[in-house]
Amino acid sequence: MIRSKIIATGAYIPTERIPNEYFLNATFFEGNQSMVRNATETVIDKFSAITGIMERRYASSGIAASDMAVIAAQEAIANAGIDPESIDQVIVAHNYGDMSYPGAPRDAVPSLASRVKHKLGIHNPRCIPYDIIFGCPGWLQAVIQADLAMRSGMAHTSLVIGSETLSRVLDPSDRDSMIFSDGAGASILQVNSEDDSGILSVAMRSDTTTAASFIFSGGRNDMVDSEPRFIKMNGRKVYEYVLDYVPRAMKECFDQIGESISALKMVFLHQANEKMDQAIIKRFYSLYGLDQFPENIMPMNIAWMGNSSVATIPTLLHQVVQGQLKSFELKKGDTILMASVGAGMNINALTYRW
Amino acid sequence: MIRSKIIATGAYIPTERIPNEYFLNATFFEGNQSMVRNATETVIDKFSAITGIMERRYASSGIAASDMAVIAAQEAIANAGIDPESIDQVIVAHNYGDMSYPGAPRDAVPSLASRVKHKLGIHNPRCIPYDIIFGCPGWLQAVIQADLAMRSGMAHTSLVIGSETLSRVLDPSDRDSMIFSDGAGASILQVNSEDDSGILSVAMRSDTTTAASFIFSGGRNDMVDSEPRFIKMNGRKVYEYVLDYVPRAMKECFDQIGESISALKMVFLHQANEKMDQAIIKRFYSLYGLDQFPENIMPMNIAWMGNSSVATIPTLLHQVVQGQLKSFELKKGDTILMASVGAGMNINALTYRW
Repeated sequence: MIRSKIIATGAYIPTERIPNEYFLNATFFEGNQSMVRNATETVIDKFSAITGIMERRYASSGIAASDMAVIAAQEAIANAGIDPESIDQVIVAHNYGDMSYPGAPRDAVPSLASRVKHKLGIHNPRCIPYDIIFGCPGWLQAVIQADLAMRSGMAHTSLVIGSETLSRVLDPSDRDSMIFSDGAGASILQVNSEDDSGILSVAMRSDTTTAASFIFSGGRNDMVDSEPRFIKMNGRKVYEYVLDYVPRAMKECFDQIGESISALKMVFLHQANEKMDQAIIKRFYSLYGLDQFPENIMPMNIAWMGNSSVATIPTLLHQVVQGQLKSFELKKGDTILMASVGAGMNINALTYRW
Repeated sequence: MIRSKIIATGAYIPTERIPNEYFLNATFFEGNQSMVRNATETVIDKFSAITGIMERRYASSGIAASDMAVIAAQEAIANAGIDPESIDQVIVAHNYGDMSYPGAPRDAVPSLASRVKHKLGIHNPRCIPYDIIFGCPGWLQAVIQADLAMRSGMAHTSLVIGSETLSRVLDPSDRDSMIFSDGAGASILQVNSEDDSGILSVAMRSDTTTAASFIFSGGRNDMVDSEPRFIKMNGRKVYEYVLDYVPRAMKECFDQIGESISALKMVFLHQANEKMDQAIIKRFYSLYGLDQFPENIMPMNIAWMGNSSVATIPTLLHQVVQGQLKSFELKKGDTILMASVGAGMNINALTYRW
């Protein structure tokens, strides 16, 4: 049995810490251009109570998604102890390309993966770089694609990165902007025929009938302006959609491996909202007839990282692998589940034996 | 033997015909901001003699890449006679996302593939849509990815589209802008175990050491402006690179199938420059010790279509399939070769039995 195995991880955590107080002077508007009634301080307190976000990270001006991707990749390559020239494919998941500052043209020519390969100094012409756009679940989808190429014999070693600078597409009059942040996470995957660790199963789902408009590009809330300049979402619709479908996709994925739910050691969820993630995990376990979910099942970093889109899962995985989240330790043989959801709407899930 | 077979094609040819005379009032500048010395009429004549381009097509204002993609896809679906709900994946290759007019934010949230699925009215949540960015060879790379998914059992039917509005990223002070155009091409691929037609072999190559900067995003030639607003290229470097490596990748691809070069019936090249394409095909045949290439080996539409990036090959294929290029007729059993090259730099090639 050949499986694709994550042999190392890396991440770039932007240096600019943005606490919730940063938004105290903001004036928030609803999507219909009416001013938000509550005092901004109250809005922030409520926001924090629901999302669990206390601070988030923004990339410094001039640092674009591909720059962050390179730093995350360098760490992953160093941790893997491999020669970069041995990498067969570089896949970068993003949604906005390179932007050096807010409002900059979103640039992906050449692709971010080509830029990363260039900046890593990889000369090997057999190393194929490409970008994938799949909303927030882009990194996990890139892992699924890397796995396909690796199991088919097209690649032996893959560098899979998620990198995004959401701070460059934020509407300052939209309170939802407080959710978003910047970051990059990278993983090295390799074909593994030595033991039974690696990717065990995957599941995917896409809904575009009405859900295509739940997360979108739009103009400022306080202006009659339909320019697709900012990331926008219909939070209530997203929440309902996620609760309906993400737990079911997770179950569909996990059930493929034929193990008891008690064998599941850890769940890595896309970090968009703490309360939502807790509701997802609660509903997931309820699908197995369980009223409660186990303690220490779900590592989280949203409190100080915010929602960094494609970067949340690879960054979180890196922090757990590095022992940075104390109560969470991955041991060889552990069965874990990853799941993500985002613009599209797209959902994916992946079961993995560590 | 399971192969991925193209069962139908479609295309969208924008309605705005832009003849070379359109540029007669332009003032062209070099990349170093010095004015181009020759009279504009002379520049245009020289341009036309080398590239073979007499006119090109621009999408009407308000029509974005995903809109063109939908029209091309509808034609392909109709020609395939399939239920759209039976499509397992929608892959859209592009490089600039949706732009409704020149200078509009390049928008891919949600992905163009999600938009296409939405506009096609496909409800099936098992139909997975994603975008790939791989420069001009994006459509061919998407076909290679579709093939991987189909041979692995992850998909049975794939909709693969290339769509781009390069007219929205043109620097009016750059004579290279005359090359570029808009368009969309779509193909339906299906798993084929009935006969021996389908994809036979592929080859890929990426060079990023110096070549990453041969096609890039930049500012106006006549201004001190590094904004990545326009498509830019170093034409001489691109030409040299292409002649060095594309014929070799084509040979590497074709040699995998173990047939004599005389068995090759048609070659579909990315259409960027007529003289360059003739030089590619000449050098490709010279690698087999042949001084001349066969007549009617290479269909071309660049004279009236320009370079529409990811759309050139699928559009050309569609026109040949539809019998629109009189001297070119595909017959069942014909061995054909496709090859593309573009920003990255990336090269790919694919041998196919019709």
